[in-house]
Amino acid sequence: MTYTLVLLRHGESEWNAKNLFTGWVDVPLSAKGVEEATRGGTLLTDAGVLPDVVHTSLLRRAITTANLALDTADRHWIPVKRSWRLNERHYGALQGKDKKQTLEEFGEEQFMLWRRSYDVPPPAIEAGAEFSQDSDPRYAGEPIPASECLKDVLERALPYWESDIVPDLKAGKTVLVAAHGNSIRAIVKYLDDISDADIAGLNIPTGIPLLYELDETTLKPVTRGGTYLDPDAAAEAIKAVANQGR
Amino acid sequence: MTYTLVLLRHGESEWNAKNLFTGWVDVPLSAKGVEEATRGGTLLTDAGVLPDVVHTSLLRRAITTANLALDTADRHWIPVKRSWRLNERHYGALQGKDKKQTLEEFGEEQFMLWRRSYDVPPPAIEAGAEFSQDSDPRYAGEPIPASECLKDVLERALPYWESDIVPDLKAGKTVLVAAHGNSIRAIVKYLDDISDADIAGLNIPTGIPLLYELDETTLKPVTRGGTYLDPDAAAEAIKAVANQGR
Repeated sequence: MTYTLVLLRHGESEWNAKNLFTGWVDVPLSAKGVEEATRGGTLLTDAGVLPDVVHTSLLRRAITTANLALDTADRHWIPVKRSWRLNERHYGALQGKDKKQTLEEFGEEQFMLWRRSYDVPPPAIEAGAEFSQDSDPRYAGEPIPASECLKDVLERALPYWESDIVPDLKAGKTVLVAAHGNSIRAIVKYLDDISDADIAGLNIPTGIPLLYELDETTLKPVTRGGTYLDPDAAAEAIKAVANQGR
Repeated sequence: MTYTLVLLRHGESEWNAKNLFTGWVDVPLSAKGVEEATRGGTLLTDAGVLPDVVHTSLLRRAITTANLALDTADRHWIPVKRSWRLNERHYGALQGKDKKQTLEEFGEEQFMLWRRSYDVPPPAIEAGAEFSQDSDPRYAGEPIPASECLKDVLERALPYWESDIVPDLKAGKTVLVAAHGNSIRAIVKYLDDISDADIAGLNIPTGIPLLYELDETTLKPVTRGGTYLDPDAAAEAIKAVANQGR
C-alpha cells in the first residue's frame, strides 16, 4: 500500500504576471491563474485523484487555487487546514520589487544568489515597510520571518509536515497541498532527498498537480520526483519559470 | 462582554433562479449569487465585523458564498469547518421539482404545508433516484435523511451548534456560519425561542450577513432577531422570498 500526496503550486498571480517579487504579499490570481487553477481541478478529475483533505498556506493565491481546483473536481466539501508554514518564501526587502530591475541593479550573481541559493536570504524587510506583514492579523503571535532563504522555508515547513500532513497521509487520506513555488520546492527537496546544490535547478510549474505515491513505511516517494498530471505542460512551464527575470 | 455570531445565507443559486426545489442537490451560485456573496463580504468589511472562523455546510452554494465573502473581507485565510449538519433542509422527493408546477399539482394547502409547516416532511426520496445523495462520498457513514421538515433540520443542526460552534464562540471568536435558508431558520428559531407556529413566517434573505451579539452566560441574543448589516435590502429581500412559488 502507498499513501497519496498531491502538490499544487498556485496559478499565475497578478505579480507573477508583472514580474515582481511577491513572497508574503497577498496578491490575487491573474485571469490566467484562475484558468490554471480550474484546469488543475480538471486534471485531478481526469486522473481520478480525488483529495480527501486540503492543506493551504495563508495566502490568497494558494487558497483561491485550492478553492477553484476542488470545486472543479467536485471536492469543494472536503476538510481544509491552513498554515503560514506553507507560505511562499518571505522575500524580505525584495518584496514588491521588479525582478528585472533588481537583476540590473544588483547584477546576475547577487540576483541568482537571492533567487536560488539554498542558504542566503535576501536583506530583511524593515518593520512597518510597505510590503511588511508586521501588523497582519493572520500572523498574530506567530514567529514570522523578515526574510527567508529556501533552507529557512524547509525548516519552518517541516514541523507542519510532521504535525498535520503526515497524520492525514497515515490515515489513508489523499492529501492535497496547495502552496507556492518555494514551499513546494522545500517539500520536494525533503521527499526526494535533493542536495543543497541540486535544488537550485528545480522549478515547479503553476497549476499542474504533482502526484507522489509514498511508501507506507518510510513515507518516501515510490517514484523519485513524482508524476505531473500533465507531464508535457509541466516540462514547458518549468522552462518558462527558469527564465523569469530575463 | 458578548459573543459575536454572523449568519449568512448563500447567494442566489442556479436553481433558486429557476424556481426549483433544491435541498441537498449541489447546484452552483448564479451570476447574481456570486455578486450577492461578494457584496456580503463588503458589508462585513464596512461594519468592521471580521470573522475569525467560518463554518459551512457541505454544499457548493454555501461554500462558494463563504469563499467569496471572506476573500472580499480579506479574511480568506481563517480556519474553516464544514458539516452536513448545516446543509439545507432535505426536500425529499420534491428535490429537482419546479415550485410553481408543484403548487399547481398539489394545491396551495399541501404546498405550503411542505414549504412551511414545522413538522411535516415532504415525501421521502427513493434510493437511487436522480436527485438522491445515496452514493455521494461526502455523506459516507453519516445518518443522512431521505426527507426533512424544519424540526428535523433543527434536531440535526443543534448537535453541531453545541459541539463545534459554541466552543468557537466561547473562545471569543467572531463566528461566521455560511449556510442555507432552512438551516439558518433552524438556528434562529433556537436562538430567538420562536414558536413552532411563528417560525413559518420567518424568511432569511440571501447574501446579507445577519449579526447576533450573544450574552456570554446564556448564549442567547442580546437583541432578539439580530441585526442585518443592510436592513433595507434585507426587508426587501424577505418580501421576495415569501412570494417564491407564486
